[in-house]
Amino acid sequence: MRDGAQAEGVSFSVSDKLKIAKKLDEFGIDYIEAGNPGSNPKDVEFFEKVKDTKFKNAKLVAFGSTRRPCIKPDEDANLTALLRSETSVVAIFGKSWDFHVTEVIRTTLDENLRMIYDSIAYMKKHGKEVVFDAEHFFDGYKANREYALKALETAWQAGADWLVLCDTNGGSFPSEIAEIVKVVVEKFSVIPIGIHCHNDGGMAVANSIVAVEQGVVQVQGTFNGYGERCGNANLCTIIPNLQLKRNYYCVPQQSISELTRVSRYISEVANLAPNERAPYVGNCAFAHKGGMHIDAILKNPATFEHIPPESVGNQRRILMSEVAGRSTVLGKIQKVAPWVTKDSPEVQQLIDNLKRLEHEGYQFEGAESSFELMVRKALGKDHKFFEVKSFRVLCEEPWQADYSALAVIKVEVNKVEEVTAAEGDGPVNALDKALRKALEVFYPQLKKMRLTDYKVRVLDTSKATAAKVRVHIESTDGERVWGTVGVSTNIIEASFNALIDSIEYFLFNEMGM
Amino acid sequence: MRDGAQAEGVSFSVSDKLKIAKKLDEFGIDYIEAGNPGSNPKDVEFFEKVKDTKFKNAKLVAFGSTRRPCIKPDEDANLTALLRSETSVVAIFGKSWDFHVTEVIRTTLDENLRMIYDSIAYMKKHGKEVVFDAEHFFDGYKANREYALKALETAWQAGADWLVLCDTNGGSFPSEIAEIVKVVVEKFSVIPIGIHCHNDGGMAVANSIVAVEQGVVQVQGTFNGYGERCGNANLCTIIPNLQLKRNYYCVPQQSISELTRVSRYISEVANLAPNERAPYVGNCAFAHKGGMHIDAILKNPATFEHIPPESVGNQRRILMSEVAGRSTVLGKIQKVAPWVTKDSPEVQQLIDNLKRLEHEGYQFEGAESSFELMVRKALGKDHKFFEVKSFRVLCEEPWQADYSALAVIKVEVNKVEEVTAAEGDGPVNALDKALRKALEVFYPQLKKMRLTDYKVRVLDTSKATAAKVRVHIESTDGERVWGTVGVSTNIIEASFNALIDSIEYFLFNEMGM
Repeated sequence: MRDGAQAEGVSFSVSDKLKIAKKLDEFGIDYIEAGNPGSNPKDVEFFEKVKDTKFKNAKLVAFGSTRRPCIKPDEDANLTALLRSETSVVAIFGKSWDFHVTEVIRTTLDENLRMIYDSIAYMKKHGKEVVFDAEHFFDGYKANREYALKALETAWQAGADWLVLCDTNGGSFPSEIAEIVKVVVEKFSVIPIGIHCHNDGGMAVANSIVAVEQGVVQVQGTFNGYGERCGNANLCTIIPNLQLKRNYYCVPQQSISELTRVSRYISEVANLAPNERAPYVGNCAFAHKGGMHIDAILKNPATFEHIPPESVGNQRRILMSEVAGRSTVLGKIQKVAPWVTKDSPEVQQLIDNLKRLEHEGYQFEGAESSFELMVRKALGKDHKFFEVKSFRVLCEEPWQADYSALAVIKVEVNKVEEVTAAEGDGPVNALDKALRKALEVFYPQLKKMRLTDYKVRVLDTSKATAAKVRVHIESTDGERVWGTVGVSTNIIEASFNALIDSIEYFLFNEMGM
Repeated sequence: MRDGAQAEGVSFSVSDKLKIAKKLDEFGIDYIEAGNPGSNPKDVEFFEKVKDTKFKNAKLVAFGSTRRPCIKPDEDANLTALLRSETSVVAIFGKSWDFHVTEVIRTTLDENLRMIYDSIAYMKKHGKEVVFDAEHFFDGYKANREYALKALETAWQAGADWLVLCDTNGGSFPSEIAEIVKVVVEKFSVIPIGIHCHNDGGMAVANSIVAVEQGVVQVQGTFNGYGERCGNANLCTIIPNLQLKRNYYCVPQQSISELTRVSRYISEVANLAPNERAPYVGNCAFAHKGGMHIDAILKNPATFEHIPPESVGNQRRILMSEVAGRSTVLGKIQKVAPWVTKDSPEVQQLIDNLKRLEHEGYQFEGAESSFELMVRKALGKDHKFFEVKSFRVLCEEPWQADYSALAVIKVEVNKVEEVTAAEGDGPVNALDKALRKALEVFYPQLKKMRLTDYKVRVLDTSKATAAKVRVHIESTDGERVWGTVGVSTNIIEASFNALIDSIEYFLFNEMGM
């Protein structure tokens, strides 16, 4: 969460970070590097808030640099911030490349070693488990092998619990990594070694794997490979590579089949489009297009799949000929209508609907209420609470009134029409207000319900302002929380559809139907 | 162009393929595998049309399978189609994994070897240079080493000019690849060996590199890594890895600095959004965000860059964010006004502006052009190209016309007013169209510019439909790419502000101001 947040386009709120930390813990991640409290107030707030959270498995790690040159550890604001975070583990990064010592922090090589020693010893004195991240270790080793190893040795002497070798600039080759890690693992046989790779040469995953083959036991990486520049080593690739193919234990076995779900959850929170071509978890990862490939896959999936897609919670997709998994869809339907069996005639219709909608860009994850309404319609368990006869939304600039948009709406309930209007902050807010105002005439209980979350995701962003958008709305009546979804090239229409679903779902529950 | 076209979402026309082939030739690619004429009529048409084209450097390759079981080569439609393509080189792929022989083509192991022999010998009889692609070679080697090697030996005996080892399912590890390639290179020392990797384990680049280290001299891959499932080995990463860091000769030296341009050109033709985080060529590849990184980069770029971005035609980007310091802001200001120093009074004013705007929800990361315009205003280096006097956007349901929204706009340039209107997919698209239509009357060069990306982030989602939104727009004139941002509780206004910035920025550059 610390290095991942340094990716361009990622800006986590404190509550985003709390959500992700809980998810990583459930998934079975051992150490969560959660922030750099010395660098920004948001991370300080995070560590403050997270103190109330119980984790099942993970240890939280606060991250910060060695003390500044020529001061004492207890005078150093960074180290003090680390202690205030009250995590049981801290990661201290220090320079192991002589060039960085002289060019960036501009001190002597000896003083840098003292900075490493003092900072770690100070943390050990305060009872912390200490991870020493040897920044730029591989570049340092190539430039001045003796000094780079000296930095590790100093950290070890100061009491570090872990030595982590960082390929900070991400340009190393697997053969170099293997060779250098081998030397370090042999030399420091009494202390566990970790690896931290960046992807600037497109080899962060491979570099992490070869390091593990050479005896490294901690792999630092990020979900979806988020991180500075080209990103960090992608844990969504490394974990299944190691666990499914080499029988390493990374996370509890049952977590592996959650991998795709967790990857997508984190991209949702980060509000970044998932990488469709990502290994294991991407939407294309098991998508077969070439005719010969499809023929072979139908004979035996192992012919063109390196692992079964279900093992990571992903699914096979046969492109063009669309033979999607019936049982997957049935599972979703039975959540709503448990009596439906594989042979019920409604199932095929729902499968077709679902496929069409997903193809159009709908995504029912987190919007199960919209899916439930669709199932109700297909099963004839529908009810028309109201009809929207028409609406009109106007935005104008310059604008005369307090608000920037006006919506006019006509609804009909039991053959009685109601026409009303409302102003709002922008077109969607105006329409939302007008719709409720009109419906509350008939359903005063709607006053109990309010929207708590509104998200917009532009699908196929390259179509620019003509692109489709998916709107996801979360609502509450104070007790329950439910999510709905709408998709359209028109953001107003997409929002409107999600709003309508949300109100209908509320009314179904309110009426006990 | 053959394997790349098997990526989901890619569908090249014949003219697309001609354009790409010319571009690859100019770039200095040696062999272009251009299509599978036995599998589809589009590729037949391509080979027909390409006959008139002169290539400076590249050899075109037609790709097809070995003959079908139990027929003669001259009875085989695939092989006939290969000959009709009239390329000097053909790639013949054959099975080297016993499992595929028995499960997929369902013939005997011996007959498969005869298929390999006959097909290659037939092509050699017709004077072709023959590349033998040993499909699933690594899986085959792991399953039945003797048979996999026998397939290679058969191809060699039949006269193949190249033996290419394919990791077709993309699941191999670098250590396996290195070990197996070593055996093959030693055993077949008289014939050049190639490598063909897929990215299902996220290691296609590394696997290709370790193969080269073991003596392979042909690397098959695709630009931007396009290909089935998770894609093929990405040549945009492999070429600079080998040429800039290991002094291999892949393409003419001057081509390397064209790499980013060629990568983006091909993604344009493929109509896929470029991967921003791609090594070397991605828009984020040299983007620095963390404050400590930025400080160090300003002292010496080698501190956090594995190569100089210019060497591959990319550029360094210092991201504006809450973690950036005063020196970052100063650097941005100096781009517009090089005379400004750290102590100039404008600097503090701009820093205060920046902080205020970030607090309001602006994010200038990836929207540096909006920031540059703000700097221009603060320094009085502004220019009013146009004024938007008013606009009005109407959305209505039910809607009569083809589009769901209508925008009316009035602009003024040099005291001349222009009123116009446009329909669009939703309010933002309608407004975008109307604005350009009005401004193109005065600035016809705006036709060169178009939007390539449109993103919406709802800030403080818990305010639901009244929440602020941040709109981020990316634009291009075919050469440059720039980003702008707008924030408002009204999505139309936020989009409008980002649009206006984008057009102004374009005009500043276009006028050389």
